[in-house]
Amino acid sequence: MQKFSLSPSGIEYTIPDEKESAKEKDIIQEITEKQRKMGLGIVTVQGMGFVGCVMGTVIADAEDDDNNPLYFVHGQQRASVRSYWKIPVINSGKPPVNSSDKEVPAIFSRTVLEKQTMRATWSNRAFEVADIVVVDIQLDAAKPAFGQAEKGYCDLSAFRDGIRTLGKHIKPECLVLVETTVPPGTCEKVLQPIIEDEFKKRGIDTKTNPPLIAHSYERVMPGSSYVRSIRNFWRVFSGVNEQSKVLARNFLENVLDTDEYPLTELDSTNASEMAKVMENSYRATNIALTLEWAKFAEQIGVDIFKVRDAIRKRKGTHDNLLRPSLGVGGYCLTKDPVLANWSMKSIFEIEGSLDMAINSVNINDTMPLHTVELIKQIYPDLKDLIVAVLGVSYLENLGDTRHSPSQTLIQVLNESWAIVKTHDPYVEMWQEMENITVSKDLKETISGADVIVYAVGHDEYLQHQPEKIVELCGKKPLIIDCSNFVNDEKVAIYKKLQCPVKAVGKGIF
Amino acid sequence: MQKFSLSPSGIEYTIPDEKESAKEKDIIQEITEKQRKMGLGIVTVQGMGFVGCVMGTVIADAEDDDNNPLYFVHGQQRASVRSYWKIPVINSGKPPVNSSDKEVPAIFSRTVLEKQTMRATWSNRAFEVADIVVVDIQLDAAKPAFGQAEKGYCDLSAFRDGIRTLGKHIKPECLVLVETTVPPGTCEKVLQPIIEDEFKKRGIDTKTNPPLIAHSYERVMPGSSYVRSIRNFWRVFSGVNEQSKVLARNFLENVLDTDEYPLTELDSTNASEMAKVMENSYRATNIALTLEWAKFAEQIGVDIFKVRDAIRKRKGTHDNLLRPSLGVGGYCLTKDPVLANWSMKSIFEIEGSLDMAINSVNINDTMPLHTVELIKQIYPDLKDLIVAVLGVSYLENLGDTRHSPSQTLIQVLNESWAIVKTHDPYVEMWQEMENITVSKDLKETISGADVIVYAVGHDEYLQHQPEKIVELCGKKPLIIDCSNFVNDEKVAIYKKLQCPVKAVGKGIF
Repeated sequence: MQKFSLSPSGIEYTIPDEKESAKEKDIIQEITEKQRKMGLGIVTVQGMGFVGCVMGTVIADAEDDDNNPLYFVHGQQRASVRSYWKIPVINSGKPPVNSSDKEVPAIFSRTVLEKQTMRATWSNRAFEVADIVVVDIQLDAAKPAFGQAEKGYCDLSAFRDGIRTLGKHIKPECLVLVETTVPPGTCEKVLQPIIEDEFKKRGIDTKTNPPLIAHSYERVMPGSSYVRSIRNFWRVFSGVNEQSKVLARNFLENVLDTDEYPLTELDSTNASEMAKVMENSYRATNIALTLEWAKFAEQIGVDIFKVRDAIRKRKGTHDNLLRPSLGVGGYCLTKDPVLANWSMKSIFEIEGSLDMAINSVNINDTMPLHTVELIKQIYPDLKDLIVAVLGVSYLENLGDTRHSPSQTLIQVLNESWAIVKTHDPYVEMWQEMENITVSKDLKETISGADVIVYAVGHDEYLQHQPEKIVELCGKKPLIIDCSNFVNDEKVAIYKKLQCPVKAVGKGIF
Repeated sequence: MQKFSLSPSGIEYTIPDEKESAKEKDIIQEITEKQRKMGLGIVTVQGMGFVGCVMGTVIADAEDDDNNPLYFVHGQQRASVRSYWKIPVINSGKPPVNSSDKEVPAIFSRTVLEKQTMRATWSNRAFEVADIVVVDIQLDAAKPAFGQAEKGYCDLSAFRDGIRTLGKHIKPECLVLVETTVPPGTCEKVLQPIIEDEFKKRGIDTKTNPPLIAHSYERVMPGSSYVRSIRNFWRVFSGVNEQSKVLARNFLENVLDTDEYPLTELDSTNASEMAKVMENSYRATNIALTLEWAKFAEQIGVDIFKVRDAIRKRKGTHDNLLRPSLGVGGYCLTKDPVLANWSMKSIFEIEGSLDMAINSVNINDTMPLHTVELIKQIYPDLKDLIVAVLGVSYLENLGDTRHSPSQTLIQVLNESWAIVKTHDPYVEMWQEMENITVSKDLKETISGADVIVYAVGHDEYLQHQPEKIVELCGKKPLIIDCSNFVNDEKVAIYKKLQCPVKAVGKGIF
């Protein structure tokens, strides 16, 4: 039976059969030989996810001083029902990810169509021909119980399979550069043994040919600086041995703007892996602190956003202080502390736990319950209450819904029999909540609502005028402001219009 | 019986009797009248502690555009056995505090002797004549159980007495500006009722003459920028009513460098009080995170100080990240989260607690136990072990020992029957540990030591050469580095010299 892979824009792509796969191997061989003759290095990026596909184009876009391309990139992606569609989309010169960064479509078009230095494939032959493999396999943390991140773990099985595939296929002298955020210890204690094992099976002497493994984590910021956040930003790296470090440095210097943003080399991959999860744990801790104080501020009539501004005047010592909100979403802050804590217990078998970071995840994950409490202060019974949630992405002005706190909010409201309507100008399809229709019609969403929740600070929401909102609503809705999206003047107008207002982190009496 | 007050330099000052106190009133009256005629405002600073005495000189040093002094300052200090000596010391033109900031003795000499715009006194008459009283009464948090900051509280009784004294004496139109770090809610819920009560007793109509109360916290940094950290730095303020805010702004603009560091006005004194304890809670949380990760790093062979440097490259978002150490000391980070948590429970009677901040205090307070664990990794039995602790102040290059983590370290070592010797070039007398002699003779301290603990990073310790240290010691001591005070090269030399090395936050195998 023929299998299809459905793209988000609704096109069905036929998943290739064995015959096509055999042909694909020859194509890769042919392209590789041609590119090598032209002097290009061969890089294969494993995993065409959020980071991998853009990283692939950045590598394919790298040039020497005479503007000659340095690398040809095979963007490798398994031919799964879920993800195969990315391959034909990329090969048509288009990004398989949505982004508000105009450089994203531009760099795909430039590298795939103009320079022809990037091509996506499902074939493992791409690993056999590579001088460097950049690992961008997705790796998530599982949190089996809500608000109990201490029970979280990392299921490495798919990741290990991916690495085993590399061990079976790569040249002994190929550098494996892990870009995925991994639990500390993964390069030394997971990758190295697997690749050594496969090398030995292949008769490769791992004493003369020890696997070359390096780690350099991305610091991608979704949004309007997507490409810049990969290419023009600080990078940390290390390797499991000296040669790995040298090769990784050389590669990163070729590909990234290391003149402006010099590389930081750490002593070991353990250190580099730890840096990534620690920097996100730092942010998670920082937010959790503000969430606890936000609740305090609300009850003593203080606006914590103004307090935060006052504190942040102290640049270099206090200006990292983050703001409270509906909750914390996205792919990093929600999982990285869990990866670290799990690594400590399960990879290194060390007693103790990283309580500060783990408690932060619990505070952050459960924070949407506080917004529910704010609603209940006015409407103790949520049954049949019509709640309009404005914004379902996890950050303003983008459509990324991964681990969005709006998801928790809506689930809790639904469990209490509230009638939830959602609106988001950036979200085409809410993959994590397929049964929810996200409207782009504000009037439709807020008409008749008892409660309007400003969940995310998209620019267009910041332009809302209270009179207009009340008119569109047709009632006197309770306004819930989750993160200082409604300013003091608008609060005053809403109150004049007899609409109650509640806000996370602001005591409005 | 005659009472004396003993200064740190060993001079006995006779505490004044009633006759002298009566005379002092007349002196204050006379000075005040003279200064008023010259157009100066009268400011009384209540409490000549670490902040109050220097703040007093900064006010006394303030000038108008024609370089005429703006204020005459009465530095009020109770004539107690513990503190009376400060009055004659100040009036001799000398600071009653030690500081590495050369501006400290200079500004005392300039204001007290040259300009004659500052004078210390014990008389409450100073409150009666004041246009502005700046409250700098010390206010501490009590932590009745080690490592259980959630049980901490704030005993406001002495503070309330001080405020009641003001209520009895100040003019109705006098501005009371609280500079002391107080639990949020203190101005509105403690000061205001007390002063109103006293005003009413005095027949003052508090409707036409509501007490004028403002709050503006200091951000003093002990060390070489002591005076600058008061005068040339960001300030936050608010008042209990509009008039208080206007008067406070006017005063602060006269006294501080608000052109370079514009004032931040918050909506209420609750907000201003919260800002102070929140900014220190932010720092405490930040450090607690690093302490947990430091222990993890040690066990997986990672140097967390290098990881921290890598993370801090991200300016504005990650560069506030602090470093692990022996523990956290000083007067702010150890108590401010406790003041906030106690305020929530006891002043506002709100359910819940500020767990992130309180847990941080517990982690930070108990961190010296980890250094004991490091010693035990080499010497499981501490009995009769000779341990030399280098540095007993709470911060490098100064002699401030308040809540020093070395104190906890030494107490625990003593309880385990270790023989502890201490050294600190900056500490004359360890007030909190009077039975401990702090040596200034390095050889005497480390000679024969089994363990040398680098507890504080005083500059002279950073210059130590391993060969010399081992020679002075005469043994092969265990070196304990509490916060990256011994660099990689020196660690290598110590190991060559067969001295084991253990470090907080560094895995040295």
